[in-house]
Amino acid sequence: MRRSRRSEVDPFIVMDVMEAARREEEGGRSIVHMEVGQPGSGAPKAALERLEADMRAGPLGYTVALGLPELRARIARHYGEWYGVDIDPARVIVTSGASGAFLLSFSALFDEGARVGLGEPCYPSYRQILTALGLQPVAIPTTLEARMQPRPEDVAGLDGLIAASPGNPTGTMLGREELSALAQACEAADAALISDEIYHGIGARGTSALEVTDEVHVIGSFSKYFSMTGWRVGWMVVPEAQVRMVERLAQNLFICPPHASQRLALHAMDCPEELEANAATYARNRDLMVAGLARAGLPRIAPPDGAFYIYADVSAYTEDSLAFAQEMLREAGVAATPGLDFDKARGHRWMRFSYARGTEEIEEGLRRIEAFLKGRG
Amino acid sequence: MRRSRRSEVDPFIVMDVMEAARREEEGGRSIVHMEVGQPGSGAPKAALERLEADMRAGPLGYTVALGLPELRARIARHYGEWYGVDIDPARVIVTSGASGAFLLSFSALFDEGARVGLGEPCYPSYRQILTALGLQPVAIPTTLEARMQPRPEDVAGLDGLIAASPGNPTGTMLGREELSALAQACEAADAALISDEIYHGIGARGTSALEVTDEVHVIGSFSKYFSMTGWRVGWMVVPEAQVRMVERLAQNLFICPPHASQRLALHAMDCPEELEANAATYARNRDLMVAGLARAGLPRIAPPDGAFYIYADVSAYTEDSLAFAQEMLREAGVAATPGLDFDKARGHRWMRFSYARGTEEIEEGLRRIEAFLKGRG
Repeated sequence: MRRSRRSEVDPFIVMDVMEAARREEEGGRSIVHMEVGQPGSGAPKAALERLEADMRAGPLGYTVALGLPELRARIARHYGEWYGVDIDPARVIVTSGASGAFLLSFSALFDEGARVGLGEPCYPSYRQILTALGLQPVAIPTTLEARMQPRPEDVAGLDGLIAASPGNPTGTMLGREELSALAQACEAADAALISDEIYHGIGARGTSALEVTDEVHVIGSFSKYFSMTGWRVGWMVVPEAQVRMVERLAQNLFICPPHASQRLALHAMDCPEELEANAATYARNRDLMVAGLARAGLPRIAPPDGAFYIYADVSAYTEDSLAFAQEMLREAGVAATPGLDFDKARGHRWMRFSYARGTEEIEEGLRRIEAFLKGRG
Repeated sequence: MRRSRRSEVDPFIVMDVMEAARREEEGGRSIVHMEVGQPGSGAPKAALERLEADMRAGPLGYTVALGLPELRARIARHYGEWYGVDIDPARVIVTSGASGAFLLSFSALFDEGARVGLGEPCYPSYRQILTALGLQPVAIPTTLEARMQPRPEDVAGLDGLIAASPGNPTGTMLGREELSALAQACEAADAALISDEIYHGIGARGTSALEVTDEVHVIGSFSKYFSMTGWRVGWMVVPEAQVRMVERLAQNLFICPPHASQRLALHAMDCPEELEANAATYARNRDLMVAGLARAGLPRIAPPDGAFYIYADVSAYTEDSLAFAQEMLREAGVAATPGLDFDKARGHRWMRFSYARGTEEIEEGLRRIEAFLKGRG
């Protein structure tokens, strides 16, 4: 049977690591999971209880394509509370995860062959979603000096730019001035700016691109701070003039985001205590990781402003991060992600360590990494 | 801010009807809803209870991209039970609704500009999803004589064909011989065959394209027979050689389908009694509709083999189905969908009536339609 050229997307290398970790565990090994990109916690308990009541109250059929009006209003209020910006709820679109928001955003903004810039290292699916839509990802190599973020001069010749703050795998953030400069460069070049802010609230709330411009697609998620990964619900904020266009795309591509997930998201936004307790765990884990990795022999890392990742230079030990990851899994029982998923050109010298799990697991992982690297000499 | 050409998708006309109906109801009017495309029932009660237990048992985080292994196995078993075909669970991919399956299928099969045939009238989102992906929908006008389905000779010059059995809005089905002839024509022309079987089990189980070929993408859904619209979970069955390709696309485009919805789907498949009771209601409603519409003055309809729609020729009354729908809503308090959503060329003479709601509402709707048409003379 025929297949398309654009379906030829790269495999996730992390999946191979996860599969190898699973096999080790099946064989009775204890494995510390620093490869995973999701919180160890679930959705807030009080929110789940309220969802159970909703499930009993009536069928959770289709919602309108843009999402439950009360959730859109609540998300708009969130921008007031966290960033001090006044967002019309009409500009908020609830999506089937941030993944759904990227599909909508890219479809809305770009035609075949459009050049969309990515500051590498970055979340690998940006590249693959762009490719699957017939668009052209353009790698922008970033530097540790520029906090592994794209700079305004990188926008030349692009049709669009994806900025991620905090970034995955780096955790580095863009400040207000840097975001403002990127937004201005995009406007001058008629390039669309897409701001991925899905990790906001973990580490720091961060600066939203909406604080500096309305000419942006901002992408948010309930998977990280709100700890609702498997529920697949996120959102986007778009310029007022683009709401109707995105609505029509959403009606056709998705019909609506999952109704139960939307209700759970609404309830989760009323559970700040449990969510802030999760955030405090990440903060503790991050401090442990920064100190522990340096002590273990990995002092060169991207500045970890937020998210739950540390991106560390492992070139003192290897030029092959995939083999290094396999060795660390086999010998030390620690799973982590080779940088190659995030940066094809330079990721062979880097590894991503996630600290999304519980603090005890982090402490154990750091002990193992230190012994492993010391033993390696 | 820039926007793409391919985002210029048509609005759903039914949305305007729904909005007008909502306004009438706000004004105190009683409205019979024959415009909706979703069951009035919710998910099976026993399945919801089991989901509550799952929610308490642990965080419902990401699943693997292809979906819960036990759900894939259960869906494979379903093909044995309903159609007597033996499907390897590895070929079953759980998706974020049938919508997600279409996105994956079209991305996997077609490159920019590919010509994909649609037997019109058809589900309008086929066309819009194809357009949003940079592909080219090709309208195939069907005839009442051919049961409003495409024929093998229509495949010439196409890169792919979407067959829907039962179709929306027509409810007509393709039999084994017709499906086999279409599959052969597609194979001869190197055109991919996509078989939309999301309404199977409502009206009749139907024939699956998997009974006649493995060279097909079959799309299924938990929204209709399983009565889980708002949960956004469906599935696809693909040739064994395409599983890895679709898996990579799914990892990147969706991460995974909603976890809770997957668990609910698994439980719903163990609730045949409640689901068959729903199906019996549709059967009763269909008989009422066929007799009632003929009595009211709309005897020319597509053969309603399945789904919960009747597509009726209204050309004895109007050449403008949109104005007719507005008039029927205003004067008779019955909402229904103008054919224009499904067939731009000829839909001005047709209307779609849904009988997805309760039997009493159907009976009341038929009384109103009869009085309206008699009064119109």
